[in-house]
Amino acid sequence: MSTAPFDERLADLLRVAATVFARKGYHATTMRDLARESGMSLAGMYHYVSSKEQLLYLIQRRCFGAVLEGATKVVAEESDPVERVRAFIHHHLTFFTANMNEMKVLSHEADSLSGDRAEEILALKRRYATLLQGLIVDAEGHHPHVAAYALFGMMNWIYTWYRPNGPVAPSELADVMGQLFLDGIRGETARTTATS
Amino acid sequence: MSTAPFDERLADLLRVAATVFARKGYHATTMRDLARESGMSLAGMYHYVSSKEQLLYLIQRRCFGAVLEGATKVVAEESDPVERVRAFIHHHLTFFTANMNEMKVLSHEADSLSGDRAEEILALKRRYATLLQGLIVDAEGHHPHVAAYALFGMMNWIYTWYRPNGPVAPSELADVMGQLFLDGIRGETARTTATS
Repeated sequence: MSTAPFDERLADLLRVAATVFARKGYHATTMRDLARESGMSLAGMYHYVSSKEQLLYLIQRRCFGAVLEGATKVVAEESDPVERVRAFIHHHLTFFTANMNEMKVLSHEADSLSGDRAEEILALKRRYATLLQGLIVDAEGHHPHVAAYALFGMMNWIYTWYRPNGPVAPSELADVMGQLFLDGIRGETARTTATS
Repeated sequence: MSTAPFDERLADLLRVAATVFARKGYHATTMRDLARESGMSLAGMYHYVSSKEQLLYLIQRRCFGAVLEGATKVVAEESDPVERVRAFIHHHLTFFTANMNEMKVLSHEADSLSGDRAEEILALKRRYATLLQGLIVDAEGHHPHVAAYALFGMMNWIYTWYRPNGPVAPSELADVMGQLFLDGIRGETARTTATS
């Protein structure tokens, strides 16, 4: 068996698992549920992963790894600090509006991993949050710590209300949130400049 | 048995149930777990509620009812449209930083009720969201629909990272988020005014 089909079938399995976890919840889902939904046998599934927790870990690692790598890249392509923040927001929303089930699972199952797996995911999340806080500081934004988590909340909460095929396209959502956030963190600076 | 002790013991039970649901998840929690944690007998618990779902419904109704009623009141006390938005934000964050377990349960178990109970809670949530959207329109904020849900995200996401007894007090959190949001939704207006 070549490497490529293994990776592809694992990717399919992760996608199915994220869909079922998002609908039923991680704890209520059994490996048998996942076998049925993926059309694989239980034995076939255990060829790819050793446990349900490993599936959750792989979903989280894939998402946080991809979003961190992608954000680092798009941010490096901009030289203006404000445009870097905008690029970060566009990238995050483009990624997660295409991965809404994963977004819900990442939000709800943040505490469901244990041991080394939990540590590794936490480290990825910290690097991602630190990247954003640095961008906010460079853009002369106020209160970078609260602002960074306010932005993550604004963006991640979309899994509760936003429909990617609804009236607001993902790129428009990113434009509106980007402008709202940038005006927000730079508000007092803008006013001070205007009146001085 | 008088009415008051019944209400008080029910309130205690709702508080314990929210704590356990927040820690273990609603679906993984049994009535037996709740009896153990509350120090009540199973029979005693069934004197107050008919099922685990009724407990979840009562937690949601109490929170959304209280936050809607309180917000309506504080908003009515302000005449300036911008100050009304600020009052809404302060009220929401004051309420939920004192009810963090409930906030997590409300976020994670939004889809766990069914039938009339689900309808009733949805109606309360819609009234609350409509109130906020009206305030944003009155304050001449842009994109009131996206802005309202961006604000709910910013505020509700705090259950994942904020500690009420940490370095940022709830009132400071409300000040920072209030200013960020108000500068954000009124940003383009402010710039247009400054340059015209």
